[in-house]
Amino acid sequence: MTTTTDLTPLLSALRHIVGDSYLLTEGDLTGYEQDWRKRTRGRALAVVRPGTTAEVSAVVKACVAAGVSLVPQGGNTGLVNGSTPDDSGRQVVLSLGRMAAIRAVDPDNLTVTVEAGCVLQVLQQAMEQQGFLFPLSLAAEGSCMIGGNLASNAGGTQVLRYGNARELCLGLEIVNAQGEVWDGLSGLRKDNTGYDLRNLFVGSEGTLGIITAATMKLFPLPAATLTAWAAVPSMEAAVTLLGLAQKHLGANLTGFEAMGQFALSLVGKHMPQLRVPFLGDADVPYCVLLENSDSESEEHARAQFERLLETAIEHGVVSDAVVAENIAQAQGLWHIRENIPMAQAEEGLNVKHDISVPVSKIAEFVSITDGLLREAIPGVRLVNFGHLGDGNLHYNVQAPAEGDIKAFLVEREHEINDIVYRSVASFDGSFSAEHGVGGMKVHELEQYESPTALAMMRAIKTALDPQNTMNPGRMLAA
Amino acid sequence: MTTTTDLTPLLSALRHIVGDSYLLTEGDLTGYEQDWRKRTRGRALAVVRPGTTAEVSAVVKACVAAGVSLVPQGGNTGLVNGSTPDDSGRQVVLSLGRMAAIRAVDPDNLTVTVEAGCVLQVLQQAMEQQGFLFPLSLAAEGSCMIGGNLASNAGGTQVLRYGNARELCLGLEIVNAQGEVWDGLSGLRKDNTGYDLRNLFVGSEGTLGIITAATMKLFPLPAATLTAWAAVPSMEAAVTLLGLAQKHLGANLTGFEAMGQFALSLVGKHMPQLRVPFLGDADVPYCVLLENSDSESEEHARAQFERLLETAIEHGVVSDAVVAENIAQAQGLWHIRENIPMAQAEEGLNVKHDISVPVSKIAEFVSITDGLLREAIPGVRLVNFGHLGDGNLHYNVQAPAEGDIKAFLVEREHEINDIVYRSVASFDGSFSAEHGVGGMKVHELEQYESPTALAMMRAIKTALDPQNTMNPGRMLAA
Repeated sequence: MTTTTDLTPLLSALRHIVGDSYLLTEGDLTGYEQDWRKRTRGRALAVVRPGTTAEVSAVVKACVAAGVSLVPQGGNTGLVNGSTPDDSGRQVVLSLGRMAAIRAVDPDNLTVTVEAGCVLQVLQQAMEQQGFLFPLSLAAEGSCMIGGNLASNAGGTQVLRYGNARELCLGLEIVNAQGEVWDGLSGLRKDNTGYDLRNLFVGSEGTLGIITAATMKLFPLPAATLTAWAAVPSMEAAVTLLGLAQKHLGANLTGFEAMGQFALSLVGKHMPQLRVPFLGDADVPYCVLLENSDSESEEHARAQFERLLETAIEHGVVSDAVVAENIAQAQGLWHIRENIPMAQAEEGLNVKHDISVPVSKIAEFVSITDGLLREAIPGVRLVNFGHLGDGNLHYNVQAPAEGDIKAFLVEREHEINDIVYRSVASFDGSFSAEHGVGGMKVHELEQYESPTALAMMRAIKTALDPQNTMNPGRMLAA
Repeated sequence: MTTTTDLTPLLSALRHIVGDSYLLTEGDLTGYEQDWRKRTRGRALAVVRPGTTAEVSAVVKACVAAGVSLVPQGGNTGLVNGSTPDDSGRQVVLSLGRMAAIRAVDPDNLTVTVEAGCVLQVLQQAMEQQGFLFPLSLAAEGSCMIGGNLASNAGGTQVLRYGNARELCLGLEIVNAQGEVWDGLSGLRKDNTGYDLRNLFVGSEGTLGIITAATMKLFPLPAATLTAWAAVPSMEAAVTLLGLAQKHLGANLTGFEAMGQFALSLVGKHMPQLRVPFLGDADVPYCVLLENSDSESEEHARAQFERLLETAIEHGVVSDAVVAENIAQAQGLWHIRENIPMAQAEEGLNVKHDISVPVSKIAEFVSITDGLLREAIPGVRLVNFGHLGDGNLHYNVQAPAEGDIKAFLVEREHEINDIVYRSVASFDGSFSAEHGVGGMKVHELEQYESPTALAMMRAIKTALDPQNTMNPGRMLAA
């Protein structure tokens, strides 16, 4: 891939396939070359923007023939540098953004078939207008695209009830590493005919082929969705509350987010217009946001919620709670949760983690890891929040309030990651719950994954992409 | 694999690994060599019954060294000849039956870790005693084992709400085709670190490695489970009823089974002790069994059910309905559904199908395929029933009432399969919704799967099992 062959003929071929306007080699390519968090910037030979699956196929075949590798890209909102080119200037970025059509909705089958470049929020809203819920929901939903959501098996806030992007997907259309099209756009909920190629491509981060379209599950819109905010005396109590909520609400429990008081204090400090319940209360180390989606009625949802919270207060796992009275209040509560990352950024640079451990081990994990970090770095500040219902915490580490933050990051980031990921491993957890591996965590995958599993992953990569055309060096070392 | 090497040293090695009592070469091996429906019988070199994962690993390594292939076997209840040996007398059957331990239950994480040889019903009952629901449920649950359920991605009656075996599985312990152990027993609901090996092994029918243990999801027991039986005027009405039930009951709808009047008439004829509602009513071509699992109370479940059925009657999609008054009545209704295959067997040999099409196309599929079969085979009788909520029908074909049934099967089975599977394909359906491919449907996979997908499957098989040690000739031609 690092030959010095003249690539002008490839560029001509690509221009011929997609048309002049959709082969970008000049001008500002920052949006394609720089990662979402603006921490790395690569340089592309070209950005190619095909408009059809046939064009994607032709682009891949041209690149294979020229020995040039491809970086598939959706909304480029990933957090692990998985969708931007390296700095060789010899990779082609294949942007799916023009393939944004909602191809078909099947109301009786409760499915939608959609192209990879459709923005998640566009899909959510279009489905809602037709009376359906498409439940995948995450912070970047205004920019991320469904193909990238699937390639990275996106998670978000509704996983507790509806699963990750993987569980919402019934079928894929793929252009593989040879440029061949596989139409696996099944709307079937049961189909046991051969190996599960769909799930192999979901979460493969563009390293095996390109997702061009998908058939996704829909759900009836709930009759009412209510949100509550509960003060809990400890992380242990939050886990007990989760069990109570699952027992009382069953599948109606669609959200369960935990937030540490320091994380909330940053919202209070940097977004004073957001009114954070129980802010600064020393007896409230954590708050929990609960969402209850009811197929019956708002009255029923409210009664169920109140019964749950009364029981939780009786059991001492909730000290106080509010239930949003209307949609605006509910949105306000969600805004607090969603603005934690922004408040954190306002406070200054920090080391982010996206970890998961079994729900039963969360409290002990947090207690032990907090201790390890405080011992290693006096004054360190822990911004702990996340999808507790899935065992997934964004366990972020903020520099001490005093001192040079940039120097802190440069000096301590590696050490901090090491402390956190070793602790995660000791609790049978994952160093990447929902963000994936990308270019950023290749080393962690090698360090923490079993050699047997790694060998099988490498064998699969070599079998399906022997020329290493697809996103080389991401997920697995090149 | 077909050399004539002396295999005595291998047998000694296997005996050494598992102990004398657990290497079977003599006596009645019918239970291991014959398939569940007693249609084929192979001949094994030996049946080996390891008691630990380490023993499974050693057995695989010994067979690899000797160039002998393995047939992994659980309860041997599969319906596609996937778990019995060929007739060469040179394959080793590896039975997981001794590895039946429930290793650990994690109540806060809602997971259980269980060995492959645990019988499904044993697991269901053990979990219920601890206050949890393990929802996988299917006809063979008294004999089938969890490892086989995962290797074949078993479906059953609760898929509508809880998914197939695949969706219930969070992690696997695997012995791969080289005899290496991968401990992937994760209890995590989110883990995006590398390719999805778990889902690749789920549904791989023993052709990539051996599942020795799994971590599975649990659910809180519902407060009440109610069953209703509705008479519907057509298959179209049944599909409309499904949509209404999904809207009204949400995730509480845990079962939705449709049964044609002829299928029910066979139950009425051969099991007269079972009282079939609406039996023989000419205005009731189909009945639907609905199950409603409520986390609140029986009163609430009953009120919800009654509201749904009233709405359905108003809309003309249900002509009459009964809701079981107690558990015995509910079990009685389920018995009718579960006894259709037995009643069919009593009536005589028949050609079974396990197909799925998108729910939106079921009515048209049935109408057209019924017509094609009746045209080709005057007097043919169609036993149509199944998991309508998943688009999965057991669309079975019974010989005409008069004539030589055995001769009919021999002469017409191929033609019947051809008519049904071509029709399924024209409706974007699957020729094997939940039973898998095994040895029986290798040809159908080659005929109906896309060449691109087949090539990727073959590449994966070769990459992970280059010696073709694991269940050769099943799923993919050897």
